[in-house]
Amino acid sequence: MKIAVDAMGGDFAPQNIVAGVAEALRAGGPIQRLFLVGDQARVESELRRHGPVDPRITIVHASQVIAMHDPPVKSVRRKKDSSMCRAVELVKAGEADAVVSAGNTGALVSAAYLKLRTLQGVDRPGLACLMPAPQQPFVLLDAGANQEPHAENLVEYALMGSQYAQRILGYRNPRVALFSVGSEEMKGTDLTLEAHQLLKKTRLNFVGNIDGHDLFASVADVVIADAFVGNAVIKACESTARLVTDMLKIELKKNPVRLLGAILAKGAFQAVKRRADPDEYGGAVLLGVNGICIKAHGASSPRAIKNALRIAAEFVEKQFNEHIVQEVKTLHERLQQAPSAQSPAATSA
Amino acid sequence: MKIAVDAMGGDFAPQNIVAGVAEALRAGGPIQRLFLVGDQARVESELRRHGPVDPRITIVHASQVIAMHDPPVKSVRRKKDSSMCRAVELVKAGEADAVVSAGNTGALVSAAYLKLRTLQGVDRPGLACLMPAPQQPFVLLDAGANQEPHAENLVEYALMGSQYAQRILGYRNPRVALFSVGSEEMKGTDLTLEAHQLLKKTRLNFVGNIDGHDLFASVADVVIADAFVGNAVIKACESTARLVTDMLKIELKKNPVRLLGAILAKGAFQAVKRRADPDEYGGAVLLGVNGICIKAHGASSPRAIKNALRIAAEFVEKQFNEHIVQEVKTLHERLQQAPSAQSPAATSA
Repeated sequence: MKIAVDAMGGDFAPQNIVAGVAEALRAGGPIQRLFLVGDQARVESELRRHGPVDPRITIVHASQVIAMHDPPVKSVRRKKDSSMCRAVELVKAGEADAVVSAGNTGALVSAAYLKLRTLQGVDRPGLACLMPAPQQPFVLLDAGANQEPHAENLVEYALMGSQYAQRILGYRNPRVALFSVGSEEMKGTDLTLEAHQLLKKTRLNFVGNIDGHDLFASVADVVIADAFVGNAVIKACESTARLVTDMLKIELKKNPVRLLGAILAKGAFQAVKRRADPDEYGGAVLLGVNGICIKAHGASSPRAIKNALRIAAEFVEKQFNEHIVQEVKTLHERLQQAPSAQSPAATSA
Repeated sequence: MKIAVDAMGGDFAPQNIVAGVAEALRAGGPIQRLFLVGDQARVESELRRHGPVDPRITIVHASQVIAMHDPPVKSVRRKKDSSMCRAVELVKAGEADAVVSAGNTGALVSAAYLKLRTLQGVDRPGLACLMPAPQQPFVLLDAGANQEPHAENLVEYALMGSQYAQRILGYRNPRVALFSVGSEEMKGTDLTLEAHQLLKKTRLNFVGNIDGHDLFASVADVVIADAFVGNAVIKACESTARLVTDMLKIELKKNPVRLLGAILAKGAFQAVKRRADPDEYGGAVLLGVNGICIKAHGASSPRAIKNALRIAAEFVEKQFNEHIVQEVKTLHERLQQAPSAQSPAATSA
């Protein structure tokens, strides 16, 4: 298995990227070749800090870097010798099975979409995130690939998210929910109303609409939303978790009794922090493109990069995309055959 | 000042509603007359539990109740003798200055929109919530009134939210932000891109786009979104806060040392809980309709109802709607005069 890594993408690149790669290779696993794409001198110098260079590593020089706030499509078109574009092109050329980048999300989505194109039968890619929840994490997509999707795109996301939950996470018959403003079928926008009717015609385990209150209620293993809403929800959740813990920290320091309590209860705080730690999940997966593409978060630690490589390897090993092509074909055949009547009796699968 | 209260709306109606009303009247304040609208016998029986009936209270009998999951528009049209419709009609008839309901949000929005109509110059009403934040709460709207708004609706929300922050909360020159997927001007949907350009032409203190990560960073006093996104964000925040505290509770009970720590630090947990307590904020305000309309949350405690009455009284006392009519007129004059060119130099106010 061969993986291309954008060594220059992310807030702490190249140091954390190179460190994560070194850690992952030391830990063993199925990676036979690892392309570190970026400024040769800087990557080499980082590599030297981790002892003798692993023979599986090949440095691929790229003279440019797409910055975190560069305009996505424009930067992909203009910065042809960027580490991100070069890394994606290794997948396109068949030299790598997967690409991992902690760089600009929009640019990575654009680069993958423009260079790799979508899988046969898939109209648009969707970015899938793992969200922590009390019992087990759930898949949320689209987290940022497609701002104004059609209902059919949401149905393809549902299928790909369901496959993610089943084939990668090992969930049996994953429950798929559509994100809306309430659980009632008739609530929502034109987009969600249409997607709801289409989802009922599929063979997915579609459990209906959920709203923000149900997010962590373990009622769904896959939650589907458009990118604007998905992005809003993920970031709002992250902000709130930080707000609650920050407020608690301030309050705990207000007097010595509370502070003593906090010290005694430290293990509990650490346990909660660990369960919500984005580094543990490694990154989001861009589903639906012709190649495995992992978006590690911008502030990735070496551990996050190591986990992103693990996820990339799992998707490659399990031939995820081959399955998607087959499942999407079946989905479209079914949707074409299904009656277009809107009555629940006629449309429920 | 005269206020109509939907005595039958909410998860704990009529008991919590009547208790809250009794509490509010006992506490004094500017309310001269209070209409309790609902089932006469049940409301009377609840009232008797709070001692001698306050002479300011008038019970208005209504034979029907709009349930929490009734379809909004349909139930408003069909349940003409519902407590909610009757309460709104008291405002329409000029017998009450404001209406308070903890009932079905969609139905209350529909009832207010259909019966009271919008203020002169306002196209669509928007539901404004107060969100807790480290320094001071901010106004988020639309939280659920208008699922598919035009850019002009968002600009009217910005103006009304800004007036809320200024006239009711006392913030000087409130900072207004547009909710999007990033702070960059060019990011977002067609709707947010258009609204952004319009907002730049206003005299509002428009600080640009924010995303979910900035929500609690105290960068804005008013945050504007469409109802779908606003609803998603508010509910996701509530879910996350509950998730974090639930996870912490479980971890704190795992061993006696942690439990002792939790007991010592109890005051800190209570302080955080109090600051995020929705009962403290009393309810959301439906801005832009011809009358003051307060939506208390469904699970309102008596204290929440008391706070909702306090908010209603403030909006009435400060002649909020009269100011809105004037400000909206100025806004539209300005937007019509402003050059329609999209260049930042020409459009920034």
